[in-house]
Amino acid sequence: MKPSNNEIIDIFLNPKSVAVIGASKNLVKGGNWIVNNLVTNNFKGRVYPINPNATGKLLGLEFKKSVLDIEEDVDLAIFYIPNRSIPELLDDCIKKEIKGAIIEASGFEEVGEKGLELRDKILQITDNFSKIRLIGPNCMGVSRIDGDSNSDEKGGFFSGFGTFQEYKRGNIAVISQSGMLNGGYLMHVMSKYPEMGFRYSVSVGNKMDLSEVEFLEYFLEDPSVNVIALYLESFKYPRKFIELCKKAKRIPDKTIIMIKGGLTIQGQKASLSHTGTLSEDSKLIKAVMKQAGIIQARDFEELFQFARTFSMIYNVGKILPKHGNISMVVGSGGAGTILSDLIIQYSLNFPLLGDEAYKSLVNIFPDWMPPNRFALVDIWPAMEKGLRNNMMREEVIQMAIDAVLSEPEVEGLFNMMFCRKGITNNRDFKLFVDNLNKSKKPVFLWLVGEAKEVRRITRILNKNNIPNFPNLENMVKNFWILVQESKNKRF
Amino acid sequence: MKPSNNEIIDIFLNPKSVAVIGASKNLVKGGNWIVNNLVTNNFKGRVYPINPNATGKLLGLEFKKSVLDIEEDVDLAIFYIPNRSIPELLDDCIKKEIKGAIIEASGFEEVGEKGLELRDKILQITDNFSKIRLIGPNCMGVSRIDGDSNSDEKGGFFSGFGTFQEYKRGNIAVISQSGMLNGGYLMHVMSKYPEMGFRYSVSVGNKMDLSEVEFLEYFLEDPSVNVIALYLESFKYPRKFIELCKKAKRIPDKTIIMIKGGLTIQGQKASLSHTGTLSEDSKLIKAVMKQAGIIQARDFEELFQFARTFSMIYNVGKILPKHGNISMVVGSGGAGTILSDLIIQYSLNFPLLGDEAYKSLVNIFPDWMPPNRFALVDIWPAMEKGLRNNMMREEVIQMAIDAVLSEPEVEGLFNMMFCRKGITNNRDFKLFVDNLNKSKKPVFLWLVGEAKEVRRITRILNKNNIPNFPNLENMVKNFWILVQESKNKRF
Repeated sequence: MKPSNNEIIDIFLNPKSVAVIGASKNLVKGGNWIVNNLVTNNFKGRVYPINPNATGKLLGLEFKKSVLDIEEDVDLAIFYIPNRSIPELLDDCIKKEIKGAIIEASGFEEVGEKGLELRDKILQITDNFSKIRLIGPNCMGVSRIDGDSNSDEKGGFFSGFGTFQEYKRGNIAVISQSGMLNGGYLMHVMSKYPEMGFRYSVSVGNKMDLSEVEFLEYFLEDPSVNVIALYLESFKYPRKFIELCKKAKRIPDKTIIMIKGGLTIQGQKASLSHTGTLSEDSKLIKAVMKQAGIIQARDFEELFQFARTFSMIYNVGKILPKHGNISMVVGSGGAGTILSDLIIQYSLNFPLLGDEAYKSLVNIFPDWMPPNRFALVDIWPAMEKGLRNNMMREEVIQMAIDAVLSEPEVEGLFNMMFCRKGITNNRDFKLFVDNLNKSKKPVFLWLVGEAKEVRRITRILNKNNIPNFPNLENMVKNFWILVQESKNKRF
Repeated sequence: MKPSNNEIIDIFLNPKSVAVIGASKNLVKGGNWIVNNLVTNNFKGRVYPINPNATGKLLGLEFKKSVLDIEEDVDLAIFYIPNRSIPELLDDCIKKEIKGAIIEASGFEEVGEKGLELRDKILQITDNFSKIRLIGPNCMGVSRIDGDSNSDEKGGFFSGFGTFQEYKRGNIAVISQSGMLNGGYLMHVMSKYPEMGFRYSVSVGNKMDLSEVEFLEYFLEDPSVNVIALYLESFKYPRKFIELCKKAKRIPDKTIIMIKGGLTIQGQKASLSHTGTLSEDSKLIKAVMKQAGIIQARDFEELFQFARTFSMIYNVGKILPKHGNISMVVGSGGAGTILSDLIIQYSLNFPLLGDEAYKSLVNIFPDWMPPNRFALVDIWPAMEKGLRNNMMREEVIQMAIDAVLSEPEVEGLFNMMFCRKGITNNRDFKLFVDNLNKSKKPVFLWLVGEAKEVRRITRILNKNNIPNFPNLENMVKNFWILVQESKNKRF
């Protein structure tokens, strides 16, 4: 019987035993880092280091000369050897009835004729991948995170040569055609946002066999994944890709975000020498993206910023805004003006407040400067009034936030927070944050102030799944994508 | 004789003696903070705290009941008192022949009828500002930075109620219609980029008398200013504004960057309740901006990021790129692909390399993967070759950078830097940075890696005036504005 897609992908994401072909005692070799990655991150399956020239043990594991010397069954082989030796050793894997292989070496389609010859050999040996399935070549492997690095459940399955030491389990899965997004850039994101959690990271490389679609299909069925962040330079099966994106629209808790490389001729040239795939022309890409109806990012930082926003929204079960009806509470007229401009430019809007919400606002504002009737609140006059009545600044802000969020037409809130010792560190943040998460409406914060205090507040907000931004336009755009996704959804 | 514009503005930016009306011993009052700001920042002129209800001294300075009790001449009065008392005390200032007043209180045009009455009284008392010139009301004062806060020359003139403790003198001047950009947000920027230097910060508020144009004119003539960052909600004198912007085009070392608030109806409503000025309709704004030919930013972070880039470019005398001919050296095919896409989307381009530059590149690349003929360098294969020849990774990168920068057609460079302990901290950064600044072509760096190491490298680069970015699109956009400015220039 032909194995199901889930069974195939489980070989790669959930293997019981792996052979590392090219394992090495040499501390500056990728074959060493891969074994180290597996062992130090508590991979629960068996690991066999393979190297015909090595003897003894590596991190307590006995070297074998060949996969054929292993007595037990092996699910997956991870190759970290020069490209020329791959066909022969892949043949050994087939003889051993290993079901899957990850080839991390480069030097295939992307280098021209000689690489194409190597590819043809692999196609022949594997009988067009009917004898063994393959990820790569030219990739960074796959990672599965089961438990946070700083917890007792630390670990998972890390098959790449990029070393991961600090990570958090979460609801984001990455599929990338550039190994950087599974290696160096992912580390960058994880260290920048230590509270951001990932479940899988898959580097598909040249996509000689398996591609984005098989993993996308798997993640759509995996309940531990809410957000799928993609970087692609080409679509291997455009129709299947569109079909899966359409399927995602009918699943309430799945969002696909993508950045497409090779939108321009120059980008396509870069892509050709990168993964050997010629990007599609921009008309086809636009057609695919339009039909797929997924969230598009413009660069890597934006891709992960969008992923972070959706991850938080799903983590605390916020409701996606349907109409883009936003409210704002800010303490600066200038910020309010620019924020209003951006809100309108992103086709969001301020609903009019009903009598009830408006009355609550009127109560906290001074007579000489009553609030607007629409949900744009410059809180400054209310804070001045509050000070005269011996109210804490925080109380006044909280009352304004409660007032606008109580308005049924309002679907979300932008709040400006000035972070400064003497202001934010005296504030009962636990209470503030809990209050924000009592509402099912997304609340986004714009943080300004002392750099150190901004970083401290950022960490608290991240831990509590409250999206926060240093940049007004980013904040507005991240709310706008929630509206887009709400419009994408069909159920 | 009518005083010149420079003479008028010198009253505000360079006064010899100031009276602080509303000075207070109460540590939570703005009138206390202003005196504190002046004294702790070593203001060289005389300071007179004025308060009819106070006795004794404030920070060593004797309280006076009224400006009329001061024996010496006074240049400038700073008002920090409720709006209702202002006309009467302003009259005292006129009697004392004080030449300028800064009114920081709000509650004028922006609050409707009662505020308009107050304005009319002020117009009458000052005889349409022929008897005394005025900044404000509803503003954050002005600041002039003479020396870095951590140096022996610490200080300058700080007249706002926002307290400044850490600052650096530099070539940027801020003119803002929102006090936030002269207070909280400026502190935010200064703490985020401690290496970024400012010369002046002017909060024009409601612009009842003096406005953006008088300060703009002054800064165009002040050789210590290269970059003028503006936030405006309205143009007080559109023709004069355009004329000054055109004048700036003929000055080689002056750049004006602006963010305009109130581009949308909703933003205009916000602006009306902010500074009482109705923003112009978007057609007029577009016409002004087009004729002015200045760099436009979309939000505050971008405004200061643009200012930082130009500040660095002027600090080290880099040449503005005329044609947008860019080169890039990156170590990731994915980054190269997305960066290429962005470069093309921003109408920049990769020139073809001449024989000489190309040959230098060919030498460092392996035969199996020669470099492109255009200035887009994926350095990975060259680093692999270098490793085999026992070359340091840094050497290879430096050789590639030198090769593309040696190409006469190339006007600048994007380089990707992966920051990680064990990589960047072993690198001779002094040498690298000095090399980059030997070239008159701007070099921008994209930094990824461990958050802590990224911050460390950022500080080094900032100190050496090398623009650096965490976001690819920001990096490209910041180069694009250099090309825009080069096209703006007429000489």
